Amino acid sequence: MNENKMIAKARTYATAANLGPGYDCAGMALGLYNEHEVYENPENKDCVFIEGNDKHRIATDGNNLICAAIRKTYEIKTGKKFKDLKKNFKIICRIGVPVERGLGSSSTAVVAGLLIADKVFGFKLSQKELLNIGLEIEPHPDNLAPCISGGLVICYRNRKNEVDFKKIKTSNSFKILLVIPDYKVNTNEARKLIPDSFPKEDVIANISNFALLINSFVSGDFKNAADFINDRLHQPYRRSVYPVSMAIVEELNNKIGLPSAIGGSGPTVFSIIPDNKVQDAAEYVEETLKVKYPDFDYKFTSISDKGSYCY
Amino acid sequence: MNENKMIAKARTYATAANLGPGYDCAGMALGLYNEHEVYENPENKDCVFIEGNDKHRIATDGNNLICAAIRKTYEIKTGKKFKDLKKNFKIICRIGVPVERGLGSSSTAVVAGLLIADKVFGFKLSQKELLNIGLEIEPHPDNLAPCISGGLVICYRNRKNEVDFKKIKTSNSFKILLVIPDYKVNTNEARKLIPDSFPKEDVIANISNFALLINSFVSGDFKNAADFINDRLHQPYRRSVYPVSMAIVEELNNKIGLPSAIGGSGPTVFSIIPDNKVQDAAEYVEETLKVKYPDFDYKFTSISDKGSYCY
Repeated sequence: MNENKMIAKARTYATAANLGPGYDCAGMALGLYNEHEVYENPENKDCVFIEGNDKHRIATDGNNLICAAIRKTYEIKTGKKFKDLKKNFKIICRIGVPVERGLGSSSTAVVAGLLIADKVFGFKLSQKELLNIGLEIEPHPDNLAPCISGGLVICYRNRKNEVDFKKIKTSNSFKILLVIPDYKVNTNEARKLIPDSFPKEDVIANISNFALLINSFVSGDFKNAADFINDRLHQPYRRSVYPVSMAIVEELNNKIGLPSAIGGSGPTVFSIIPDNKVQDAAEYVEETLKVKYPDFDYKFTSISDKGSYCY
Repeated sequence: MNENKMIAKARTYATAANLGPGYDCAGMALGLYNEHEVYENPENKDCVFIEGNDKHRIATDGNNLICAAIRKTYEIKTGKKFKDLKKNFKIICRIGVPVERGLGSSSTAVVAGLLIADKVFGFKLSQKELLNIGLEIEPHPDNLAPCISGGLVICYRNRKNEVDFKKIKTSNSFKILLVIPDYKVNTNEARKLIPDSFPKEDVIANISNFALLINSFVSGDFKNAADFINDRLHQPYRRSVYPVSMAIVEELNNKIGLPSAIGGSGPTVFSIIPDNKVQDAAEYVEETLKVKYPDFDYKFTSISDKGSYCY
């Protein structure tokens, strides 16, 4: 066996979930990604080499989420135990997606594993199958689905109670600004801050706002979208874990009318920049935000219509 | 004073609120309407003459909602008491909108009063002003707003906490079927059945479904819209007041895939008929529904893009 034979390459994209009022059901793929090279490993174990920032945060053995997703996919599709296959992988992962910042880094790993298994074992899984296997590892579809399909995605349950998703055809008239703080939020801890039920008025606000925000993305008309992006179901409950991010969200919404929200469970700030406001946004970042928050990372990116892939 | 001098004519449209998951925030104007002729009344009282069905359900004196809305509009806009004006109206109202069936009949009356006052006193109110005065009489915008503006409307609160609305540009590729039972539902009683808070999973389902349904209306692609129209926040709680209507909703959604919901607080069934299913729907009505529910009224209509008006 040739240790150096590359058997697959995969690219998986960052995602921003929730998009303000679309709590736990919506997400968007972004132009940041991780790249993976997959080799057969002659040793009887999986290992992952991480290149890039935050690498000390990521498991480099079989506990790595990529490896877990490969095993899960194999076992679900074949009904056999992965360890009986006597096949192991060495994966080189170049990290472009910040870790534990609310940009779906764990989904990039799960989806990498799904796609690598699909390619290496020739399963030819549909996107819906990929999503449902991924949900066995990470039970929230709002990062997984856009990571798989690209674009802006809304997840839902159909009448058979299956999780499915729809990719929304958006206008091509906006960019995305990410403001990435220098601290992390643990998703599971952040989830615990959300109550099990919500007051009626808050629910109605999110229902109307999210539909109006989606209509803005579809039409490309972002007038009043700084109103529509307002959320009352998760951000207010989690303010204590990302107070500075919330201050930036409110500043962007209210001072220069850029529709802004927290990415996923934070702390990254996700801001929609209509094409005619790109210059204003760039100036605001340089002259105001970078002065107030010099240690944060500022990235202008865009929606990635392309989904994650493996070849 | 010439008793017979007509000083205004107004037309106000039926509306279906909620549209399934868009609980308490969305509504659509339909092609059924009431018409009003307004005369000065030399007697020192307002009176309304009703022509059409259900006329015994409607007040014919100054307690009529049309008269209440005229008085309210005058008093809010001028700061003066209406009775000091010494002006009274005789209104002939031809009813085309069924009463207490979930088709916004009370909004047709309130909006008629708003528009008549606007015309007669020359206020030149904006649609947002009309809505906010109307809310002083009927505190729910989901029928009022589409009745005023026409089309499919989503109401929301802006960052100043003002009620506003946006008319959504829909495709022109569908018709509406209304199945109107022969019994009535009192809106205030129906409202009492809804709890003050909702479980998280149900909330997420309505948020995603409503955005997906709106995207269907915008794109004209109604594939899976029978999934998207599913509601978990009002219809399940009110099933006891319109059990037959819910059975028809489920039959239309599940047996022939026509996206269907309860209009407002019911009992009318509101069903979306994509243009390529009009023939199927007509056959299903004739051959199945009319056989099972012969006393119900079946109307094929369409969205009214035109809002209510007075001239």
